Amino acid sequence: MKKILVIGAGGAIGKAVVSQLEQRHQVIKVGKNRGEHQADITDMDSVRTLLEKVGKVDGIVLTAGQLHFGPLQEMTPELFAVGLQDKLMGQVNVVLAGQDYLSDGGSFTLTSGIVGNEPILYGANATTVNAAIEGFARAAAIELKRGLRINVVNPSVLQESLDSYDPYFYGFEAVPAGRVALAYSRSVEGAQTGQVYRVW
Amino acid sequence: MKKILVIGAGGAIGKAVVSQLEQRHQVIKVGKNRGEHQADITDMDSVRTLLEKVGKVDGIVLTAGQLHFGPLQEMTPELFAVGLQDKLMGQVNVVLAGQDYLSDGGSFTLTSGIVGNEPILYGANATTVNAAIEGFARAAAIELKRGLRINVVNPSVLQESLDSYDPYFYGFEAVPAGRVALAYSRSVEGAQTGQVYRVW
Repeated sequence: MKKILVIGAGGAIGKAVVSQLEQRHQVIKVGKNRGEHQADITDMDSVRTLLEKVGKVDGIVLTAGQLHFGPLQEMTPELFAVGLQDKLMGQVNVVLAGQDYLSDGGSFTLTSGIVGNEPILYGANATTVNAAIEGFARAAAIELKRGLRINVVNPSVLQESLDSYDPYFYGFEAVPAGRVALAYSRSVEGAQTGQVYRVW
Repeated sequence: MKKILVIGAGGAIGKAVVSQLEQRHQVIKVGKNRGEHQADITDMDSVRTLLEKVGKVDGIVLTAGQLHFGPLQEMTPELFAVGLQDKLMGQVNVVLAGQDYLSDGGSFTLTSGIVGNEPILYGANATTVNAAIEGFARAAAIELKRGLRINVVNPSVLQESLDSYDPYFYGFEAVPAGRVALAYSRSVEGAQTGQVYRVW
């Protein structure tokens, strides 16, 4: 039985990951405003406070992160910073600080998304950030010490969220959150590193 | 004959691009502290001032941008921000503001780099940023209006710079800047959009 921290545990993916991992592990649920623990991962002090409180863990799963959606013609550096500061740096912050809190062989599992590969209208910030997350994991994988691992799950749009995203995802094959959760299990309970698990 | 703005014209790649394009076009050279015009592309006001001064152009080439190189164990959000604010947002800023200054069918040509695909030690910031730039261009390509185009040149390490980068690039096949410049020509003088031209 491992001790796994799930940050973003209250979201559609987070809930499915918790259900999947709780069958075999101790799961600590973290949200921004709910869950057993609260943390704002865009704030390094908040990240460090969380990690100190929770102590050594065997895996950290990140399913949290905001992006900006809007037309390129109206994009500003400030709007573009939403995804960079939240979804990208939120996850990067947890990896940077979390290196000291993972037990040997422990894993980080980050979340990108299909829009990183398959752009949609109004999605420039999302494509950029998702591509950046996969780049970060690819590079971090070769530098982590003590057998620490890092992978990314890249889900398609969720069946559970599809209604709220229409019409931007017409033609995309939606996937159930439960199937996406299997990819997190593969990362946490497997032995690979530097992988992107596409669920699409 | 086109009117082409080259931002980063004083660098190793920029100089080669200028030589290549000056054979057939009017090239306006921009640097941070040198060139016909100076601009700090990390500052949106500076970008807008430059574009106002230069007026309508047929192509904007970006060969400027700083990255942070250092071990993952010593990385901080502040060090990580170097590449995000400079190489990534510098180029993004110019695209966001430049949409209104390109003539119909005009092109943006951005610069990423082989480390985006092939991570090296101390290169987590570089891999992240280079991957992000390619993601941004992939997404922007489907939203630009008036036939505007955007491509990325992804060079290997330059033969001209190899000495200063040893030993991080052992095993990489270095390329001469003149060969890299051809990829910029293909973007500016061709008709494709959303492409990554790898020079390796």
